This record gives sequence, structure tokens and C-alpha cells, in this order.
Amino acid sequence: MITLASDFGSPYPAAMKGVVLQRSDARLVDVAHDLPRQDVRAAAFWCRETLPYFPPAVHLVVVDPGVGTDRDALVVRVGEHALVAPDNGVSLPVAREIASEVSEAAPDVECFRYDYDDPASSTFHGRDVFAPAAAAVHEVGVDALETLDAVSLVESVVPDGSPESVVDCRFPEPTVDSGAGEARGEVLVVDDFGNAITNVPGSFLDGRAGEIVEVNGVSAPVTTAFADVDAGERLVTVGSHGFVECDVNRGRGDEAFGLAPGDEVVLAG
Amino acid sequence: MITLASDFGSPYPAAMKGVVLQRSDARLVDVAHDLPRQDVRAAAFWCRETLPYFPPAVHLVVVDPGVGTDRDALVVRVGEHALVAPDNGVSLPVAREIASEVSEAAPDVECFRYDYDDPASSTFHGRDVFAPAAAAVHEVGVDALETLDAVSLVESVVPDGSPESVVDCRFPEPTVDSGAGEARGEVLVVDDFGNAITNVPGSFLDGRAGEIVEVNGVSAPVTTAFADVDAGERLVTVGSHGFVECDVNRGRGDEAFGLAPGDEVVLAG
Amino acid sequence: MITLASDFGSPYPAAMKGVVLQRSDARLVDVAHDLPRQDVRAAAFWCRETLPYFPPAVHLVVVDPGVGTDRDALVVRVGEHALVAPDNGVSLPVAREIASEVSEAAPDVECFRYDYDDPASSTFHGRDVFAPAAAAVHEVGVDALETLDAVSLVESVVPDGSPESVVDCRFPEPTVDSGAGEARGEVLVVDDFGNAITNVPGSFLDGRAGEIVEVNGVSAPVTTAFADVDAGERLVTVGSHGFVECDVNRGRGDEAFGLAPGDEVVLAG
Repeated sequence: MITLASDFGSPYPAAMKGVVLQRSDARLVDVAHDLPRQDVRAAAFWCRETLPYFPPAVHLVVVDPGVGTDRDALVVRVGEHALVAPDNGVSLPVAREIASEVSEAAPDVECFRYDYDDPASSTFHGRDVFAPAAAAVHEVGVDALETLDAVSLVESVVPDGSPESVVDCRFPEPTVDSGAGEARGEVLVVDDFGNAITNVPGSFLDGRAGEIVEVNGVSAPVTTAFADVDAGERLVTVGSHGFVECDVNRGRGDEAFGLAPGDEVVLAG
Repeated sequence: MITLASDFGSPYPAAMKGVVLQRSDARLVDVAHDLPRQDVRAAAFWCRETLPYFPPAVHLVVVDPGVGTDRDALVVRVGEHALVAPDNGVSLPVAREIASEVSEAAPDVECFRYDYDDPASSTFHGRDVFAPAAAAVHEVGVDALETLDAVSLVESVVPDGSPESVVDCRFPEPTVDSGAGEARGEVLVVDDFGNAITNVPGSFLDGRAGEIVEVNGVSAPVTTAFADVDAGERLVTVGSHGFVECDVNRGRGDEAFGLAPGDEVVLAG
Repeated sequence: MITLASDFGSPYPAAMKGVVLQRSDARLVDVAHDLPRQDVRAAAFWCRETLPYFPPAVHLVVVDPGVGTDRDALVVRVGEHALVAPDNGVSLPVAREIASEVSEAAPDVECFRYDYDDPASSTFHGRDVFAPAAAAVHEVGVDALETLDAVSLVESVVPDGSPESVVDCRFPEPTVDSGAGEARGEVLVVDDFGNAITNVPGSFLDGRAGEIVEVNGVSAPVTTAFADVDAGERLVTVGSHGFVECDVNRGRGDEAFGLAPGDEVVLAG
């Protein structure tokens, strides 16, 4: 199985699929091709929230603002999964997440460089570099990927560790003062529903269902269901990723709370 | 085969696909993930217009404004098809349509409750409840779904009947006075082309090709092809779903006729 | 394998998929369903840029402003590929491209008419005509498609030739004066990134990396990577299709250069 994620919109992903299918009979599964454009941190977030749900697979992830520069192509192996992506950090958070979910001893995160010849284009390495690489890794098998001539190990990192030789991506850490009932964090992404997803862990809201909290001074009730408030009304809840999010029932939380990705959020009350 | 339909946009459907693929080798087919958001009636319409074209399958349909409340999860079986969806009516119109298309004796529409444990999230039952349910139904087989412990029959309804114990969804009925040449109906949905699709049956236009009709007082010719009028011009035709629709050749009918979902339409002339 | 491309948006493509799957077990691969609406030339461009990357397949291409008129349905065979599409030219450029990429003697482009009975709708031949046709061609095999009763050869065209009896689509030819360092062309399409893709061959920029060129009087450097200029800055580069394109790093080239599909472009300097 090969999953595909990119910020390419349409129809460029089709060229990637064709290239893969020329080289492999793998089942292809589209993850998303409208990841926030050229936004490595947001792409890393969404990969972390989706790819760990898949069975072992090769995951092709192409959000690549550095295309055409000398940034490397990477294959990151974690357990039976492999992530094929540019060396810009996009695959590290999901690799750590997959490692953390292995019930026995968490596997290392192994970072391999994938050497490529001068590609046909300088602007579409998704088609010319990463799709062939993903197909090659799939065909040889994730277990045996180091037998590919193009592949060389750069470093192996302990499950929650940070690599030294490849680019990492870390999400900002919130400050949570449970005693004072205050948390300072940041909006990581806004999803398609308009929910403003912060980096404040959901545990901040433990035991507060029904209470009122303030988000940057805007009041809203803590609920477990959207339908706990009327249509058009604000709510604060723990989203499906485990973080505090600022939402509106049948509306857009980002607009109602005045929040955009990267904005600071102060939760109080 | 498992089809997937939702109003989740992107990339949440990928998590559903991963969850299914952890549990099943089924072929997955995306129907749509941009169904009108949290609009059960529109979703029921689009499911009715697309799912009956598929061979027997498990259809995962998640448009779920009641997520996190105590609404049930349902499995609706009709012939060799099963619909896995929230108990909000979204799967009843398509189930009746599938029943009606069986050439011999139409099968009953059997409504089963699918019991679920406390899910991982209160906001993403597509991932945590419905995707596992769809995989379980697929793996046991639609014929044998009642052998699943989680499944219990709520009621069995005659092909065109209405259930009493689960939520139904009925489209509004138009009033057609063929003698007076007048029909009163409603815009059910506006499609991606901007075609305003009403609930007036296409038979209202039988034998009128080339005539002029009025839609809420706005005149347009009855045609069978978009290209029968110039680009940018209004037309009234029978859409592919068998209903009267108000369109513009190479343009948006909703804007040209001033129509939105839910609006009343009076057809005359 | 059957690929699917259309301008149908969502969810109409699902009905096509269902119809195909009723008749065939083929692997389905979505190319795009948001091709520029009813724009045959743009659709022909995108088919040419994506379909040749696929292994031999039946390609269903439905951009069909003439739906419901008496335009024919075509099957265009080139080597082991078949294109099933309306007779409006959309499949000719890609057929020529596929022919040109065969390393030995390029195959002819064979154009077949596909006769169809009165379809269920006059507005959705994607579902009622082309999807069943694509399934039928797939099931009988591209090699043997003329054994289908519905199929009759209209004409066979030499690889780079133009047909006489079916509609062709040709992209406009640019005027390149390499001595004067000037090229006059046209914007063929604007992609999802906002890159304005012209019909001027990339060779016009050979050896000019780092130089400044003017596009309709607007200056920008010639680069090989987006990241060679700062975010928000204009650049001119050779796109992945081999044409000159006018872009902005992390922004929209169409807006920055004031270009839309069909606009004339004069490159100088």
C-alpha cells in the first residue's frame, strides 16, 4: 500500500499516481492533496493526525517549498512504515507518533537519504523523484529498503529523539498552569470546518464540561458535542486529535473567535 | 467494496480510510467528502443519486451534526447493500431507492442499531465509530450482519415505508397541476455546476421542449441540451436525476434564476 | 485499469464509478474531476500532462459542453491505451503525446465512433454513455475493441497527424525569435498554484538562468527553483511540462504578472 499526500491540488497528483503505477501494483490511497500550501508545519500536523491510522504502508508526502534546491530526498522508516518525503521535517512528527503507538519497545526512527539523478524537471520532484522513490521502496519492501543502491542511512534516532543531520519539525509547546486554570498556546491549524485547533492538550479541559472558559477574552462553554450549543454558537472542546479547539456549531470557529494558524491563544477560567 | 461519503472535506476522510484498511482488505471508493456540510437532507439526496449505481457494497455515510450526542449508529440493509450512518435519516431515501430498483419483489429496508463503546473522541465518530462499523459489516458480510454482537434489529420496513423507531428523511412533495400547466415545488440542492435542482418531476415538462416556461416569473426555454441555448443563457431541463432543474449554459443557474436550496419554485406556462 | 477525468466536481463522478464497477472489476484511478469547466482546450492540456505517465489503461475523459446534442462518442486508441471521450478534440493532444513517447515506431492514432442508444438522461452522458463505454472497452480489451458491436473505425491518423472526420484540438503555436531573444505566445492554463503556463517552449530560456526577462513588460529573474527568489517574488522558469511559466515563490504568478488563460505573452530580454 502506498498513501499519497501533497499540497499539489489538482491535477498534478495524477502524474504521481501514473509514475507509481508504472513501477508498482501497490494499492494507492489518497490522503489529501490540498494540504496547506508549502506549509511544512501544517502538513506535518495533518500527516501525524492521519497516517498512523493506516496499516503498514509506504507514505509519499510531498510538501516541498525547497523543490529544485539541493535539499535531500529522505526515506524515514519506523517499524513497518516508510515515509518518502523531502528533507524539510514534514515526516518526523508522524514518524515519532507511529513509534510511540507500537505497544512493545518503540522502534527507532531511521532516516535514509535517497540519492537521485538529475530529474526531468526542477519544479515537480513529486513526479520525478519522490513517486519513483516510493514505488522503489514499496517494491523492495520496507524491511529491505537499505538494499536499494539509492538509499543510505543518515542517522537512526531514538523514538522521541530529534535527528541531528536531517531537518526536524517540532510543534510549539504550550504553557499550562492548571492551578491558575490558564494555558498559553498557539493555533496549529484551522481545519476545513473552520475549527481552530490549538496545541493545548485536551487534559486542560478535564472535568470542566459545562463551564465557561475565555479564549483571548472571548467566552464560550466547554462541551463534548457540537450540538450541545445552538447552531451558530461558540464552543470549546477537545478535538479528535486530543487538543483544545475553538469551534462553532454548524459554523466556523476561526471566524467567531478571530483566530488564524500561528495566533497565540490564552485560555482562562 | 466499501464506499465512503461525508461532509468532512480534507484530510479527515484519510483517517477513516486508514481505520477501515486496518480491519479490511475491501476495495474503497470515494463517493464525495464535500457533501453540503451538516445538511442531512442534501446528503440524503446525493446518496440517493449516486449509491444505487454501485454494485452491492457497504456504504459508509457520515454527515453527522449530532456527533457526540446520544443519537444511535445505524446499519440499514437493503438487498445486498448496507448503509452505515448516524440515525438522522441520511440513509433512508437511498435505501428506498435501492429497494425500488430491485426487479423482482422489492426487499424490505431493515434498520439495525450498531452499539458502540465510548469512542476515542466525541467529535469524530466517522473515524471512531462508523469506520470500524463499516469494516466489521464488510468482513462478516452484509447477509450475515446480524451475527455481529454489536448489531441488533430495530425494525424492518416495507420497501416504500417509513420507519417508526429510527429517524427518517423525506423530501418535500411538489404540487403539480398539469391541466393548468403549473407546478409548485422547492429547490432541493444546487449542484457544483450551479444547476438548481427542484423536486418537480421531469414529467412536468413532457412534450414541452422548445416552449417557454416561467420560474418564479423568470422566463426560460425548455431544452434537452445545455448547448441548445447560447453560453450564458438560462434554460429549464430535466436533469439526470429526473427532476426539473433551472440552469445556465456554461454558467450558474442558481445565480441567474435567483434560487438557493430550500427556496420555493413556481413553474408556469 | 480505468482512469477518470472530468469537470464534474462532486459528487457526480461517483455515479460514473458505480456504473463502471457494475460492469468491470478494473482498478479505478481518479485523475481529476475539477478540470476547468467546459473548457475543452484546458482539459486537453491537462490530459496530455497527466495520462501519458500511466501504464496502459482505458482513460475516461468527460468534459462535454455538447452533451445532449448529436456530437459523437469516441474511443481513441493509441498503442495499448484507449481514450473514451466526446468527439470534441479533448483526447487528441494526449493521444499524439502517447504516440510520440513510444520508443520504436510510433503507433497510429485510431479514432472509433461508439454508437449509443438513447441514454437515460440528456445531460449526464458521463454516467449514461461514457462510463458504460469505458467499462465495455476495458472488458473486451483495448487490443480487441473493434470487436464491440457499438464500435466502428472512423479514421486512423499518423502519429502527429490531424484527423479529418473527428474534431481535433490544437494548442496555439508561439513565435520564437531566439536571435532577438523574444517570444510571443499565450497563456494555456493557470494551475492550482497560480502558475501561468505559456505555450513557449522551455528551450527559450536555455542558458539564461540568473538573467532578467520581461513578461509583457514586467521584469523577473529566470530561475530553476522557486526558492531561488524570496517568498512573494516573481520568477520565470521552465515548468514540469517543458513550457515557460510565470510564477511567484509561495504566491500566485497569475496575479503578480496579471495573466489569465488565453492572454498573449511577450517574453523579451
